[in-house]
Amino acid sequence: MLRTHTCGELTIKNVEQEVTLSGWVYRNREMGGLTFVDLRDRYGVTQLVFDANKDKALGEKAGKLGREFVIKASGKVVERSSKNTKIPTGEIEIIVTTLDILNASKTPPFTLEEETDGGEDLRMKYRYLDMRRDAIKNNLLNRHKVTKAVREYLDGQGFADIETPFLIKTTPEGARDFIVPSRVNKGEFYALPQSPQTFKQILMVAGFDRYYQIVRCFRDEDLRADRQPEFTQIDCEMAFVEQEDILQIFEGLVKNVFKKVRDIELPVFPRMTYADAMRLYGNDKPDTRFGMLIHDLSTVVKGKGFKVLDDAEYVGAIAVTGASEYSRSQTDELTEFVKRPQIGAKGLIYVKYCADGSLKSSVDKFYTPEDLKKWAEAAEAKPGDLILVVSGSPSISRRALCELRLELGTRLGLRDKNKYNPLWVVDFPLLEQDTETGRWMPCHHPFTSWKKEDEHYFETDKSKIRANAYDLVINGVEIGGGSIRIHDRAKQEKMFTTIGMSKQEAEQKFAFILNAFEYGAPPHGGLAFGLDRFCSMTIANEENIREFIAFPKNNAGRDMMMESPSQVSEEQLKELGIKLDLK
Amino acid sequence: MLRTHTCGELTIKNVEQEVTLSGWVYRNREMGGLTFVDLRDRYGVTQLVFDANKDKALGEKAGKLGREFVIKASGKVVERSSKNTKIPTGEIEIIVTTLDILNASKTPPFTLEEETDGGEDLRMKYRYLDMRRDAIKNNLLNRHKVTKAVREYLDGQGFADIETPFLIKTTPEGARDFIVPSRVNKGEFYALPQSPQTFKQILMVAGFDRYYQIVRCFRDEDLRADRQPEFTQIDCEMAFVEQEDILQIFEGLVKNVFKKVRDIELPVFPRMTYADAMRLYGNDKPDTRFGMLIHDLSTVVKGKGFKVLDDAEYVGAIAVTGASEYSRSQTDELTEFVKRPQIGAKGLIYVKYCADGSLKSSVDKFYTPEDLKKWAEAAEAKPGDLILVVSGSPSISRRALCELRLELGTRLGLRDKNKYNPLWVVDFPLLEQDTETGRWMPCHHPFTSWKKEDEHYFETDKSKIRANAYDLVINGVEIGGGSIRIHDRAKQEKMFTTIGMSKQEAEQKFAFILNAFEYGAPPHGGLAFGLDRFCSMTIANEENIREFIAFPKNNAGRDMMMESPSQVSEEQLKELGIKLDLK
Repeated sequence: MLRTHTCGELTIKNVEQEVTLSGWVYRNREMGGLTFVDLRDRYGVTQLVFDANKDKALGEKAGKLGREFVIKASGKVVERSSKNTKIPTGEIEIIVTTLDILNASKTPPFTLEEETDGGEDLRMKYRYLDMRRDAIKNNLLNRHKVTKAVREYLDGQGFADIETPFLIKTTPEGARDFIVPSRVNKGEFYALPQSPQTFKQILMVAGFDRYYQIVRCFRDEDLRADRQPEFTQIDCEMAFVEQEDILQIFEGLVKNVFKKVRDIELPVFPRMTYADAMRLYGNDKPDTRFGMLIHDLSTVVKGKGFKVLDDAEYVGAIAVTGASEYSRSQTDELTEFVKRPQIGAKGLIYVKYCADGSLKSSVDKFYTPEDLKKWAEAAEAKPGDLILVVSGSPSISRRALCELRLELGTRLGLRDKNKYNPLWVVDFPLLEQDTETGRWMPCHHPFTSWKKEDEHYFETDKSKIRANAYDLVINGVEIGGGSIRIHDRAKQEKMFTTIGMSKQEAEQKFAFILNAFEYGAPPHGGLAFGLDRFCSMTIANEENIREFIAFPKNNAGRDMMMESPSQVSEEQLKELGIKLDLK
Repeated sequence: MLRTHTCGELTIKNVEQEVTLSGWVYRNREMGGLTFVDLRDRYGVTQLVFDANKDKALGEKAGKLGREFVIKASGKVVERSSKNTKIPTGEIEIIVTTLDILNASKTPPFTLEEETDGGEDLRMKYRYLDMRRDAIKNNLLNRHKVTKAVREYLDGQGFADIETPFLIKTTPEGARDFIVPSRVNKGEFYALPQSPQTFKQILMVAGFDRYYQIVRCFRDEDLRADRQPEFTQIDCEMAFVEQEDILQIFEGLVKNVFKKVRDIELPVFPRMTYADAMRLYGNDKPDTRFGMLIHDLSTVVKGKGFKVLDDAEYVGAIAVTGASEYSRSQTDELTEFVKRPQIGAKGLIYVKYCADGSLKSSVDKFYTPEDLKKWAEAAEAKPGDLILVVSGSPSISRRALCELRLELGTRLGLRDKNKYNPLWVVDFPLLEQDTETGRWMPCHHPFTSWKKEDEHYFETDKSKIRANAYDLVINGVEIGGGSIRIHDRAKQEKMFTTIGMSKQEAEQKFAFILNAFEYGAPPHGGLAFGLDRFCSMTIANEENIREFIAFPKNNAGRDMMMESPSQVSEEQLKELGIKLDLK
């Protein structure tokens, strides 16, 4: 028996008991013949005392223990004279009589404290050490609490957890597939699922009615800081439902998880159309914790001889509360901010609506104070506010105003870490046009259905067709999304044709689902949450998903600990019927 | 709203209510202007009645409904005149007033009844139809009950569910890896995990103490009837434990699942050493539901001038209860059975211990009735039994006796479908020698530790080293296994050397775990259950795992529904830096 108790459970109630603990040497110090060791395991820290005055050999052995040594210690629980009230075990200590060193440890390459001195690469290489830190340890333990709460809710609602395969065929999510050469069927390949989309629809055709799975998905994308080539999805589908049924069920899920994991009661989730989100917040995942909405100034700014605005397709503004006193260098910096290539605005016009009611702007040459007063009204600015105006193409201007709003919201402390504002964004467009090729692409995926009343736009303006699609956004972060699906072969074929997929290609990739739709496919729809982000938001109200994944990959898709991907032998490739082609 | 109730919940209590149901047309029949439709969904079947006398158009519409059409029907719940007591909804029916056809269906290519007429390939191609059959549907719903019970138990025991990556490096399980070309790191490959073995050990080094995961694993093996290239494992690991701790915890797990899913109370699991299992049952996964043990006859048969037995390395026998009257053709057939190439015995000797106490054998020329009496005693045979004797190499003879025992157990009805006999098999050998190359290979995997007292056999006879390894067997089926792991770098290196792995290869493949062992690795061990088999045994006491997997692959590793694996474009391969090499 390696322990009778963990390092987190002994309290004053256990005084006088003989116990055995095992764990890691967290900290140790000597004082007048006594060695004190803080012994740590997953559950907590308990103080061990070795008395060299009573047992010299034992004292010496204890004195030689290094940080992170793994030891087993037996002795008696006693009450401490100087108590630590910050930890549950702080009232007792163990007077050790027997010590076994179970394993030694080299000195860790970075400190294993709350704030570590390890750089990201080093921490990833020694992930097993990084995970000993409370921060990462608790993130992962809390992640389990999230999935447990998710399962409890969905189990309670009659959802069946059904596993779908990983070695499949190409998936329709729009990213590149990872592929797997088949040795048994040489020259052929499996694909790893970008999501179990087609399988969950097949399960609805099969009659399972309510399905869920917490499942790994794979996308071979060019990596960005917050992307992982593999990620986990809470994947759900329901039959015989309309959009409203789905929103209700999954609003319930999110509320339940927040209650169980964080003891937070979320309010009823408001709904906002995609069109409103774009108009008022400049993007489709608004952070609604604060106002500073975007206002359309297109009409009030025109006709005063300022060509830039007169010719502008779109003019929008936000009013930044209490920022009218910003200096020239501050407004210049904001101008540079929106001119960055990631945003691409041509410039920034500002109007200072001073506390005394006077108005000063960067375009005073063209506009009188009376003109600017109208701007202020249109922007719903109050005295003391700074009005920031961007003009040009609607998409770039909105992006600029959105980013300005978020940046200034952060600077002004309006994005409260303790506040959670969930929001359903609904009525997404069905299709978007690729600016380069002119091809129409699904905004969500090609299995998404559209609103009956928009059917006629297929002939006139495809951009106006609204999908039965919805996203769940919390504090400006998209944590889930889904749609009511097509369940009719003819409609599915119409969709494939619309996005430029030939009949032959559709048959080759998706024959099974087109066929399935001919054997009694019920109306159905669903949703998927990105678990990594769902966890980072639920647990910490932050977006850094890597801190919530046990073994994340770096920005180049590499596992720094395993040193993977790596080369394989010629022999192995030969067996698989492939060879390298690196030219 | 597509339904107010499911097809499984309306009873006599709902009479007079106006309801809406949606589902599939299961059966329909007409009788004097009335059309009766059995409407089916996941939850049950409800009878709909359409009365053409009251509403002709409705009656005609109902009359045209085909099997598996998806419909929505509204009407009033009434008490049936002729009740069906076999189903919960059998006392009522719905007098339908509105009918919507939500989707039509072609005629299914096989009947969707308990006993289907569909061949396996057809059923796999139309898996969505096959899954509408109660048999498959219930298997999958029960599989969810199993995983739910597993999670509840492990969550309750403080195990943390932690996800490990799928895009990893080569794994040490002894089968071939599936590999995944990396586009971002051209010329390099990920491997799909054969198991999360190294990751769960890393998690123990990280201090997670108790880990589990229900996780997909991948092995690129030449396929057999009961193998799938991807399968699911209940994967567990614990730190600061000895073998006994693990056996206790997981015995508890299995008991818990049987209780929750089947309401069966399993007894305390007996333990048997590997050596005893081989000696008494001829294999390492004995079906202990019946006796018919193997007895060693080596000493009693010798010295009577019968060269075959005198020279035999091993002579073993089983006594088949009540089979002394077997005819010549029956004993001939058993002889052919053991001579099949899969078994490879040279022949079979029989002794009929007749009900009157007389003894007749196929070797009467060499042995007197008194000699044979001694055989009968050694084989623990009673009058009326048939004694079957096999001689030759111990491994082939044991295999023959084991297969004979199982076959006769089946024929004599001794393998009771309602009986569950769990068994821990312990003390497996650490290493086995490859007969062709002479190399020593790990019986389990190279992270398994060995018994201290057997350490000296490394120098003398490696086959005698016993591992700290154990399997859980139920009714002759191995459903799980594990070991106490090595947690010391020097021991791990000794193991790698012993199995012929060079220092360089060990470093290249497993540097991360060797390094991790130098930073305070605790003693640890674990176990994994094969979930597919765990489910097939728990739910149905049978081994046909495909009936418990939603989308299984066939014997050639193909998904018949998706038609996968399949060819990919030159372009896609080019992007990945590989090309086909099919010569």
